[in-house]
Amino acid sequence: MADFQPPQSITTTKNNLPIAIVHHTPIFNLSSFPWILEIVNPIDASDPLFSIHGPSARAVIVLGRSPLKSEHLDQYPSVEIVIGTSAGIDHIDLAECRRRNIKVTGAGDAFSEDAADYAVALLLDVLRRVSAADRYVRNRLWPVNGEYPLGNKLGGKRVGIVGLGSIGMMVGKRLEPFGCTIAYTSRNKKSQIPYVFYSTVLELATVSDALILCCALTDKTHHVVNREVLTAMGKKGILVNIGRGAIVDEKELVKLLVEGEFGGAGLDVYEKEPEVPKELFTMDNVVLSPHKAVLTPESFEALRNVVIGNLKAFFSNKPLLSEVNPTN
Amino acid sequence: MADFQPPQSITTTKNNLPIAIVHHTPIFNLSSFPWILEIVNPIDASDPLFSIHGPSARAVIVLGRSPLKSEHLDQYPSVEIVIGTSAGIDHIDLAECRRRNIKVTGAGDAFSEDAADYAVALLLDVLRRVSAADRYVRNRLWPVNGEYPLGNKLGGKRVGIVGLGSIGMMVGKRLEPFGCTIAYTSRNKKSQIPYVFYSTVLELATVSDALILCCALTDKTHHVVNREVLTAMGKKGILVNIGRGAIVDEKELVKLLVEGEFGGAGLDVYEKEPEVPKELFTMDNVVLSPHKAVLTPESFEALRNVVIGNLKAFFSNKPLLSEVNPTN
Repeated sequence: MADFQPPQSITTTKNNLPIAIVHHTPIFNLSSFPWILEIVNPIDASDPLFSIHGPSARAVIVLGRSPLKSEHLDQYPSVEIVIGTSAGIDHIDLAECRRRNIKVTGAGDAFSEDAADYAVALLLDVLRRVSAADRYVRNRLWPVNGEYPLGNKLGGKRVGIVGLGSIGMMVGKRLEPFGCTIAYTSRNKKSQIPYVFYSTVLELATVSDALILCCALTDKTHHVVNREVLTAMGKKGILVNIGRGAIVDEKELVKLLVEGEFGGAGLDVYEKEPEVPKELFTMDNVVLSPHKAVLTPESFEALRNVVIGNLKAFFSNKPLLSEVNPTN
Repeated sequence: MADFQPPQSITTTKNNLPIAIVHHTPIFNLSSFPWILEIVNPIDASDPLFSIHGPSARAVIVLGRSPLKSEHLDQYPSVEIVIGTSAGIDHIDLAECRRRNIKVTGAGDAFSEDAADYAVALLLDVLRRVSAADRYVRNRLWPVNGEYPLGNKLGGKRVGIVGLGSIGMMVGKRLEPFGCTIAYTSRNKKSQIPYVFYSTVLELATVSDALILCCALTDKTHHVVNREVLTAMGKKGILVNIGRGAIVDEKELVKLLVEGEFGGAGLDVYEKEPEVPKELFTMDNVVLSPHKAVLTPESFEALRNVVIGNLKAFFSNKPLLSEVNPTN
């Protein structure tokens, strides 16, 4: 796919300017595509490249979680498609794109496997205290204090998946052979899924030992994991969040952990990244990860193929690979 | 099972002494069984309880990895059965037990699930750098240095399992949904197993991205993972050891890691526990665990049931639950 070039007639504007623009610091190399212009900091309107190329771009590639709101869209008056490149796309103003008749694509399944793997890794780590035990050994405490305190077994745990999209499904599939009982909540009950469906996060939490958050951040999921949901899991409850920080009322989570009223957490995301609540730094029942659930060379390669595939489809008038909410 | 009592006629000797003895510091409570005597330190022959009860015991329960060699067996002249309680039983002199016509039982499958879970946890942790990333966040480096360096995806990796007993089988079963290709080496090729068999560790390493050691430590497996095996996996090779430290030539492993000639390691066991080679303490591509792969309350409960079940079977002349090498 690396050799894809749209027909010359559509790759440049009348003034021979690029027709696709990269919105943010590039995380992978697109330089083999001369018709894609990379602007390092599109927020910086003083960048001279910006005023030249911004108006001509028909496609905007939003790298990472760089915000693309109404004011940014104003800078791209010719844009017809926004290519998102992250698993969640809450940083892109979908309503505004729809209003302007701009198509939006996401990362598709490029990150799903890595995200699901990481969710399982965090759950295992919190239960079995892998990171804490590693710290114990590195701090030379083993010969001094002897055996490390017990963790807990994964098998037999009731795991509730919040958001049974492609990532959530893959989490379930991975947890089955460990002997977990899996249930879920999602926008809709899925057909032909062997897991029990609960219509609210609270109902799911009530029957779960651990919740894994795999849903998107929307108005409806903002702070949906609140104190009531967390306490419904009981004192040994475990939360794994690979979605977005703001799905959880972080202050309440921290408070419950500090009070010893909640079992543990594996967090890849936070409300105010890269800030992490300082109370968590000394806890052995939490695993702290710097928003990296999907960061592997393998998923970047998969993402690159999705991005180029979407551009190719767009410029060839073919169906997009991973259009977001095309019917909304 | 907790209420099991053998018939009064066989629970005591003529002098009303206990007939079962616990060989080492108790790790779980057996006090509900009055016919089991716990001696805190059986190695300390000066313990007055020892000289009274040692001669009468028909069963010896060896807790943890306390050695039981010929000289210890001499202290239990009436013993007919040795009940091991750890996943590996290389600390029990099997040949000597056989010579004395003493039956030996192991932990059976009590630990298998936890051990398999932990192997997967270590592999995921090494590949995805979970513990290292947790350290990065706790050291407050995220806001300063930005994103944590990439890990690697588990899916698509070729994983070689060394020792396809119950633990190895469970490791394979758990790794399948992650999209790993699984192969193995074992004493014998297993029938009806979907994984490709290799007759030596070296052959297996040659076609593997990661090796997971699930075998017992014996004369044949001592240092079986040597420099040649490790280098056969290539510079990105990964080793996970939940077996015994001495299966690996630890010096060579450390040397390769220091030289940057090997990818990473997840180690729960070491050659001279609790000593861990100090070169490893500063490495982000290793995960260090203090021999705790099977330490959960759930597996202790399962173990307790196996121990009591074996005692019950023995005193009832029924088949033992987890006899070790009964035919050798």
